[in-house]
Amino acid sequence: MTRRPAPHLLSRKDLERFFARDIDRHIPHLILDCAVFGFHNSDLKVLLIKWKGMNIWSMPGGYVRKTEPLDAAANRILQVHTGLRNVHLRQFHTFSGLNTSQRPVKQFYAKLGIRVPADAWPLKRLVAVGYYALVDFLRVRPSADYMADTCAWYGVDDRPRLAFDHEEILQSAREALRATLDVPSAGATLLPSRFTMPELQRLHEAILGRQLDRRNFQKKMLDRGDIERLAERRRGGAHRAPFLYRFRSGRAGDPL
Amino acid sequence: MTRRPAPHLLSRKDLERFFARDIDRHIPHLILDCAVFGFHNSDLKVLLIKWKGMNIWSMPGGYVRKTEPLDAAANRILQVHTGLRNVHLRQFHTFSGLNTSQRPVKQFYAKLGIRVPADAWPLKRLVAVGYYALVDFLRVRPSADYMADTCAWYGVDDRPRLAFDHEEILQSAREALRATLDVPSAGATLLPSRFTMPELQRLHEAILGRQLDRRNFQKKMLDRGDIERLAERRRGGAHRAPFLYRFRSGRAGDPL
Repeated sequence: MTRRPAPHLLSRKDLERFFARDIDRHIPHLILDCAVFGFHNSDLKVLLIKWKGMNIWSMPGGYVRKTEPLDAAANRILQVHTGLRNVHLRQFHTFSGLNTSQRPVKQFYAKLGIRVPADAWPLKRLVAVGYYALVDFLRVRPSADYMADTCAWYGVDDRPRLAFDHEEILQSAREALRATLDVPSAGATLLPSRFTMPELQRLHEAILGRQLDRRNFQKKMLDRGDIERLAERRRGGAHRAPFLYRFRSGRAGDPL
Repeated sequence: MTRRPAPHLLSRKDLERFFARDIDRHIPHLILDCAVFGFHNSDLKVLLIKWKGMNIWSMPGGYVRKTEPLDAAANRILQVHTGLRNVHLRQFHTFSGLNTSQRPVKQFYAKLGIRVPADAWPLKRLVAVGYYALVDFLRVRPSADYMADTCAWYGVDDRPRLAFDHEEILQSAREALRATLDVPSAGATLLPSRFTMPELQRLHEAILGRQLDRRNFQKKMLDRGDIERLAERRRGGAHRAPFLYRFRSGRAGDPL
């Protein structure tokens, strides 16, 4: 039996080293933010971080190394701040980052006693490259890093207000997520390999934030041709056994 | 009669001033590139710049000021390099800019006799925010700035090979352009206010790069509900007078 090593989470030492030395190895004025959506049953959530000792909530984000591809940076940043690995993050938009006060960041580092030069670029304008992902929140256990009191799932419409430009970024990420529903097999990694039509409909309804007509939904999904009905039915429920479906092979696996 | 002032094109003085003084007013390691597509009749073209005295072709691009929103930067950059104004540019993706040699840029400035420090960030890795637009190329007259020998329209599949990561950016921009065809009223600013079904089909075919079935295309467009058939028909052609259509009001005007 081998045990997977615990994912590396950002430590106090990492933070100190960043401002003392590593900052020049990063692209100035650029940040990368991750909107991680979690779905299960009928629930849509988003992964948020509460900053240590502060009344600040945000999505996980971090800086890009000068030698690092953006996609690799997205995965590394998500991992060091939340412990999440192997999440399929997808870029959706880059934000100007103007009209956003970085004052809370300054207060935060002062409170932690970490030396940050007053003119350091992380305290100024940050252009933000936005990434999003959709995971099953029951299968994913986020961890808090040194910067955070907590890192946890919140209902997308029942959560604290986000700092910086993260309300705008989250709003835009939700639109990107909605647009993926038009892509065949979106949700292939979120549903069991065999699923019922109501399960697929709940995924779409959670992402769209509204009820859908059962008949129209079923027709649209079948017309699209990316799912197929199996011979078996789901058993054991109180109701009439519903048909089971699966995504056609060759299409699933990269839903977003 | 008033005459519109000629748009300001980048001069030698602007270039010299950029490296002598203005560079620190820009976000380091960030560039913004514009894929401007031109359509007319059945032709899809792209706007390219040939660099002065060099065998380099690229799309127009430039640096973002520290106080400037990305959308505003896109419009300014397109204008100073090509003279184009009032083009609806839309952001589509941000590129890592790794594996891209900036050596030709160094040679270019050396040839022009413009002093550039060897460690200046425009000679290093540049993360590129990509924008694209679609215009009627008969209505748009591009101009060459100081950096360019020419600025002209080329067939998207019949053009010089592009430098830097511009082949990848152009490829990705074409995919973004294709995706807009699923948006109702795409092309509303490219077609006359009243158009025939074959004219609309030619727009779609040029962007998709393949022939479409006439009956299926007509059915899909009418089903979508964003165009309506008018009482009149087009006259004067050699063939049977075709029906005229228009985009339903309230939908046109922001096609991309």
